[in-house]
Amino acid sequence: MLEELKKEVWKANIKLVEYGLVIFTWGNVSQIDREKNLVVIKPSGIEYTNLKPEDMVVVDLLTGNVVEGKYKPSSDTLTHLEIYKTFPNIGGIAHTHSINAVAFAQAGLPIQALGTTQADYFCGDILCSRDLNPNEILTDYEKNTGKVIVETLKQANVDVSAIPAILVKNHGPFTWGSTAEEAVFNAKALETIAEMNLKTVILNPSAKMPKSILQKHYNRKHGKNAYYGQKV
Amino acid sequence: MLEELKKEVWKANIKLVEYGLVIFTWGNVSQIDREKNLVVIKPSGIEYTNLKPEDMVVVDLLTGNVVEGKYKPSSDTLTHLEIYKTFPNIGGIAHTHSINAVAFAQAGLPIQALGTTQADYFCGDILCSRDLNPNEILTDYEKNTGKVIVETLKQANVDVSAIPAILVKNHGPFTWGSTAEEAVFNAKALETIAEMNLKTVILNPSAKMPKSILQKHYNRKHGKNAYYGQKV
Amino acid sequence: MLEELKKEVWKANIKLVEYGLVIFTWGNVSQIDREKNLVVIKPSGIEYTNLKPEDMVVVDLLTGNVVEGKYKPSSDTLTHLEIYKTFPNIGGIAHTHSINAVAFAQAGLPIQALGTTQADYFCGDILCSRDLNPNEILTDYEKNTGKVIVETLKQANVDVSAIPAILVKNHGPFTWGSTAEEAVFNAKALETIAEMNLKTVILNPSAKMPKSILQKHYNRKHGKNAYYGQKV
Amino acid sequence: MLEELKKEVWKANIKLVEYGLVIFTWGNVSQIDREKNLVVIKPSGIEYTNLKPEDMVVVDLLTGNVVEGKYKPSSDTLTHLEIYKTFPNIGGIAHTHSINAVAFAQAGLPIQALGTTQADYFCGDILCSRDLNPNEILTDYEKNTGKVIVETLKQANVDVSAIPAILVKNHGPFTWGSTAEEAVFNAKALETIAEMNLKTVILNPSAKMPKSILQKHYNRKHGKNAYYGQKV
Repeated sequence: MLEELKKEVWKANIKLVEYGLVIFTWGNVSQIDREKNLVVIKPSGIEYTNLKPEDMVVVDLLTGNVVEGKYKPSSDTLTHLEIYKTFPNIGGIAHTHSINAVAFAQAGLPIQALGTTQADYFCGDILCSRDLNPNEILTDYEKNTGKVIVETLKQANVDVSAIPAILVKNHGPFTWGSTAEEAVFNAKALETIAEMNLKTVILNPSAKMPKSILQKHYNRKHGKNAYYGQKV
Repeated sequence: MLEELKKEVWKANIKLVEYGLVIFTWGNVSQIDREKNLVVIKPSGIEYTNLKPEDMVVVDLLTGNVVEGKYKPSSDTLTHLEIYKTFPNIGGIAHTHSINAVAFAQAGLPIQALGTTQADYFCGDILCSRDLNPNEILTDYEKNTGKVIVETLKQANVDVSAIPAILVKNHGPFTWGSTAEEAVFNAKALETIAEMNLKTVILNPSAKMPKSILQKHYNRKHGKNAYYGQKV
Repeated sequence: MLEELKKEVWKANIKLVEYGLVIFTWGNVSQIDREKNLVVIKPSGIEYTNLKPEDMVVVDLLTGNVVEGKYKPSSDTLTHLEIYKTFPNIGGIAHTHSINAVAFAQAGLPIQALGTTQADYFCGDILCSRDLNPNEILTDYEKNTGKVIVETLKQANVDVSAIPAILVKNHGPFTWGSTAEEAVFNAKALETIAEMNLKTVILNPSAKMPKSILQKHYNRKHGKNAYYGQKV
Repeated sequence: MLEELKKEVWKANIKLVEYGLVIFTWGNVSQIDREKNLVVIKPSGIEYTNLKPEDMVVVDLLTGNVVEGKYKPSSDTLTHLEIYKTFPNIGGIAHTHSINAVAFAQAGLPIQALGTTQADYFCGDILCSRDLNPNEILTDYEKNTGKVIVETLKQANVDVSAIPAILVKNHGPFTWGSTAEEAVFNAKALETIAEMNLKTVILNPSAKMPKSILQKHYNRKHGKNAYYGQKV
């Protein structure tokens, strides 16, 4: 079932390696079929070089049960599901341990909007979530990671279409989009921006970007008045 | 029309990728035909891997109108035109979001001349422009970006032949040369120098280069007493 | 003799280059045959490109004598043997001069557990050994390096199965595992984590990870309650 | 003439690119024939991709005159000659603008011996030369650069066989060896060490290595009691 979707999710997972965002088995990508409420995701702990489209696992959005697949799904599956359940306009999710984004996550700091590279894809700061408390860690850790992501985004009133990324504290980035492919694109954009911002902060710890530049660049590319790129 | 020039501009755009200066669609290169007052530039938002010479867009220097091409021109076209209009000896322009140069642009700092690598191609500091004000951003943003570039260069009396680069604050570098190819060469030189200077500043925040070394190295390579390289 | 083991050790040495962990001859990997008390190790000072499985050297665990091989074994052989003698559950050892891990070793600092990337493979800080004293350096330097590694691990009560790495002060990392292949895997994980942690410390010198996250992530992957990956 | 030597020097120049030490035309390598007092060196300003063995230029050690070659020699030729004239046991010289070594040169700081990676090839700190004064820059700049290199090494009593490298302030590294190939090897080792030391200093500005470790590692590899590597 969902053979086309499995191919898309497999391709998106392979892109993580091509983009230099993951080594070994560090990362996972999923995409949801919103009509069937089924999520296709990478199997847990399988190296990307050995991965085939048919290895992708199909999981039920509401129960988290495996519906099809010979492998166990990614150990982060319940985090993905929590995000899909809360935000109906998210279609694909990517999780990596890309080095510069992880540095911000480990530092417990947001990636502030300091330049137009970020503004082109993320209309504001990329937030970092709070620590999970010991209870949240001991029981249902992955589900609670998803809940804390949701909590962080909701408390700050983040429009997840306009800022398609978050840092999980001491862990790493989750990015999303309308598809798995877009989520992976945003994971690569995020990692590049994270490196730019780390180096900016080294040069000038109090660097800032005027809000009007942020809005201008984001709106050049997104929304009804966008004029970047070709009409599709 | 301008088929040869399109090929040159296409080749220069592809070089941005080969040199590791851009990912996705982040960057653009143009070259001007000074006799016809026509500028050939990359189309907006098209990935480099799919780009063909015939996709390049021909734009009128004075009106900014598309004269030929099935695509919309780069969204930064009006910035390019403003520079071409002001400086008649500039023949090609490149814009990238290369990581280290962007870090200086986001920090709002010039790339100071600290070594002979910079002196070989840039006879002085590479300046960073001022913030655009909200009005300049709301209306004619790209044209005003060009105007602020021109303002920065003129106020500091920069000889654009001798310092073929500028940083646009919170955005990134623009470089130029007599051709698109030379502009891209300078973009690669700039990015390398930016990394060197960032690391220099980490080691010694008050590093300086004597002015006489700057002049010597620049003049070894440029002008009537140059003796670097082969006579052409 | 031990032709299969030589092939494994050769393959693991070649991986050091593929993973970008060594240049020239800077590194070595070994694996032990616990039944025969024989260690197979890279020959000293031979470039990886020229290396063949039959060039591997077989060394006696207890005497350090070469049992088979046309070459001299790695100059760090006696360090490897000291580790094998002390910790019977270590099966393979890798030593590199990978840049970020060396930076911590030269700084004389541990790689603190600041994120889940580290927690997935190393259940705690990766320690840095003390200075050797002049006597330990003058006589039996390589053996004493092994002894100081052992001393550091024992004094801190490190479970070498749970934290399969150490930094030798002013030198570089040693990693291990049940096989040479696993030791090299841990060397790559360590180098990546070292880069993450260096960048984290730049952003936030007082970054910390709650202990409960460390335990959770390590136990997700290791031990009897592990649920990461597929059942083998 | 010297066709074999030209091939060696050409190969060493090409290695600069393979090792990631130079882009464009930034660097040059030479080797001397001590019997004939002739130096073979890269031509000035020719890109490495186009370089052929027969393009190498033969220069007279004492006069600096071109003895054979259709091209002008590297603009840094007189710096090379000054070093060859002073130190009879130097056989090959390499000059690069490799990023991390340049950062130290621009910072005006030596690369201190902080680890065994450096100790394996450089028995001490790698010095940085003083500023040239305006007269030294205006007349005979390249020759004077060589003289200041010599002055720096002699004043500090550096054994050039034991520390085969120097940083020219605000410029970059020169390395040497018994052959051009060895000089390029040392250029790669130097760049790697420079990156290690930059990162070490970020982590711990007061990092040090005990002198006894420096001596031990250097003597393991060099001199009559060396035991690293295979007997040749």
